[in-house]
Amino acid sequence: MKVELISFTPEPEKLVATAARLCYSSRGVSEILADMDPEEMKKLINLLLSMGHESPLEHITFTFAIEGVSRVLSHQLVRHRIASYSQKSQRYVDEGNFSYIVPPSISGKEKALNRYHECMATLQKAYDELCELVPREDARYLLPNACETKLVCTFNARSLFNFFSLRCCNRAQWEIRGLALEMRAKVREVAPIIFNHAGPSCETEGVCHEGSYSCGRAPNN
Amino acid sequence: MKVELISFTPEPEKLVATAARLCYSSRGVSEILADMDPEEMKKLINLLLSMGHESPLEHITFTFAIEGVSRVLSHQLVRHRIASYSQKSQRYVDEGNFSYIVPPSISGKEKALNRYHECMATLQKAYDELCELVPREDARYLLPNACETKLVCTFNARSLFNFFSLRCCNRAQWEIRGLALEMRAKVREVAPIIFNHAGPSCETEGVCHEGSYSCGRAPNN
Amino acid sequence: MKVELISFTPEPEKLVATAARLCYSSRGVSEILADMDPEEMKKLINLLLSMGHESPLEHITFTFAIEGVSRVLSHQLVRHRIASYSQKSQRYVDEGNFSYIVPPSISGKEKALNRYHECMATLQKAYDELCELVPREDARYLLPNACETKLVCTFNARSLFNFFSLRCCNRAQWEIRGLALEMRAKVREVAPIIFNHAGPSCETEGVCHEGSYSCGRAPNN
Amino acid sequence: MKVELISFTPEPEKLVATAARLCYSSRGVSEILADMDPEEMKKLINLLLSMGHESPLEHITFTFAIEGVSRVLSHQLVRHRIASYSQKSQRYVDEGNFSYIVPPSISGKEKALNRYHECMATLQKAYDELCELVPREDARYLLPNACETKLVCTFNARSLFNFFSLRCCNRAQWEIRGLALEMRAKVREVAPIIFNHAGPSCETEGVCHEGSYSCGRAPNN
Repeated sequence: MKVELISFTPEPEKLVATAARLCYSSRGVSEILADMDPEEMKKLINLLLSMGHESPLEHITFTFAIEGVSRVLSHQLVRHRIASYSQKSQRYVDEGNFSYIVPPSISGKEKALNRYHECMATLQKAYDELCELVPREDARYLLPNACETKLVCTFNARSLFNFFSLRCCNRAQWEIRGLALEMRAKVREVAPIIFNHAGPSCETEGVCHEGSYSCGRAPNN
Repeated sequence: MKVELISFTPEPEKLVATAARLCYSSRGVSEILADMDPEEMKKLINLLLSMGHESPLEHITFTFAIEGVSRVLSHQLVRHRIASYSQKSQRYVDEGNFSYIVPPSISGKEKALNRYHECMATLQKAYDELCELVPREDARYLLPNACETKLVCTFNARSLFNFFSLRCCNRAQWEIRGLALEMRAKVREVAPIIFNHAGPSCETEGVCHEGSYSCGRAPNN
Repeated sequence: MKVELISFTPEPEKLVATAARLCYSSRGVSEILADMDPEEMKKLINLLLSMGHESPLEHITFTFAIEGVSRVLSHQLVRHRIASYSQKSQRYVDEGNFSYIVPPSISGKEKALNRYHECMATLQKAYDELCELVPREDARYLLPNACETKLVCTFNARSLFNFFSLRCCNRAQWEIRGLALEMRAKVREVAPIIFNHAGPSCETEGVCHEGSYSCGRAPNN
Repeated sequence: MKVELISFTPEPEKLVATAARLCYSSRGVSEILADMDPEEMKKLINLLLSMGHESPLEHITFTFAIEGVSRVLSHQLVRHRIASYSQKSQRYVDEGNFSYIVPPSISGKEKALNRYHECMATLQKAYDELCELVPREDARYLLPNACETKLVCTFNARSLFNFFSLRCCNRAQWEIRGLALEMRAKVREVAPIIFNHAGPSCETEGVCHEGSYSCGRAPNN
């Protein structure tokens, strides 16, 4: 998996604090922007987020390039609807010699791994043969979930909070959890005050909502 | 493919017409509802839609049960973000003895079809074996795009207009196009005045926006 | 204020339970629908909501006719973006002899009330005069926030959960709080199992997130 | 009215072109980004937009500070739901000595203007008096639509396309049309290739959809 933060709103924390301040001020925006010092910004953001006032977070967006992930992952990812996606098309792009993701549980067991590689080789061969007989967009019905895909996606910070609360959880499926942790690490580098508040409820509130499925890291609420 | 309209807003066209009328009237809602006769309703809806005023369409929703479709289709379908989905989980539900979709181009060519069935049998066997060695949620990385899935989805009529304009087009991928045509046929039974306006731009405006990829059914704009 | 539930998805709780069940079942939708008995439905919905799995709630929608509310309220209401609105237009509909909302704090104080009525009479007169001189859509710049408006709005149940959590709170502004309580009472009549779970966090989780602004009904988290 | 573009995605056109290219390429994102030259970028964007492929536009966002506008405008503006808003609160911020917007049709007619100013003075006085008697959040029920407000709002480029198509139209209400034209001018400075495609259908397609209400600038379709 390769995750890069390829673009984001400049000075993201300053913008969030400015937008939040505007709601409760009679001053103009340029004045608020000019006067926003780092200390006030930090206090304001921490206050906002401790009270769950997340709407100013929507003003800042983060664009990620994601490669080396499976279509298991992409199918889950695009279920997050408050986000924008551009994904490599299996309909138009040839998958001759496709790459594929190997789950750690499989790579850790020789017997499973051999069977897996063998299967992928069979599929690759069958895909190439079918491409001779039928349109590529139909040959791809053979391709496995494991098939590597690439995406560019853009989330605003509020939607990222939701994403991290669900997908950084120990109960999330391992591949998308790995992605979520990577994405969170990247945005913490550029907006640490904000994203230190982001994560599953065991980290942010000290309680778990997973009921009897809990990993036990925090007590159930 | 099996598509059923399992639920929808009662008297959908009357509700759309009432909401639209409210915007330009000083009368109350109950009065407008009581006075709405079929002739006025029809004229009002046709006027609205000819002018592209689609917002009153959002008040009515349609819920479909969709079965016998591939994960090629479901991955495309859930890209329509103004809609709600519940999909059978490959993570939690055993795919032992899975069903799979066969593209018409493949079923029409014996050589291709034999190769396809053979591959599916190999995958089924490998999936079952892997399930003994690793968690089911990892074994599924082997499963093909063709694997059958089931969904319940709900769209409002405005989002359906967008869906039909894109997916009833001859250029759409055959499987999702088949679904879109089925869904349109179902909603036309219960809201004919509205959904007679829904379809690709060649049908609704007499022009095509697909440029050099056009099927030629209508001239390019 | 007059709030009516003018339309909603038939058998809403059965649909939610069916959609939720589908995710974890290899059975078909018609079979699940046919087998869904009231006891199972209730248990399933309570389990879902106790774990915060709200997505199946999106399949059911509720349409309200709202009259006798101010434009203070409507401006706040339409900030809830996951919902659909049709509102009486001040641009196109004449506001000669407009009705207006009186806040309880004003109706409870004679001096304030007299001043308020006096002002409204002045505005009404000035609006009528301006309508003779300039387009109605410009005369309306004079009209007060108190001016009565009417709307039809449609929310899905998940969006209603969010709305009720924010607007049934004692800290919410009195007019929209009154609306939220009315709307909740209406939907509790037709989907009691679901909407018994809906409300501010003091009711649903026994904690308050309003920090130092808390009304004190539940301890801060 | 004062409109400033206070933040936007860096190199917006390059990002859009890169995301679009990814869908049809087997190359990785960094390679595409590195190879994207201005000529190719321009051709690609023009091709996308001529075919109505707007989804890559969602990756770039634009944040505006808007001041000196009325609550007539803000109530219309926030109806655009695919956008994020932070608005000065009339509930929490004192409106003593409020500013107000004067429609051109009123400022152009002495008699109307005098009446208007007179009314505003009366309202200001009554508001101040009511603030002594009741909470500020209730006194504001007196405040007129004309009352000045401030907002920070963020749109992605696709949502801006929709906004400009509706609100740059000659039929749009004058104040929000003025805002839309200003916003379009600002984004054309930083993303000219993209936003030269944005506007009402008379400009972008050479046809009008307003039916008998058309201004006549382009023929009805």
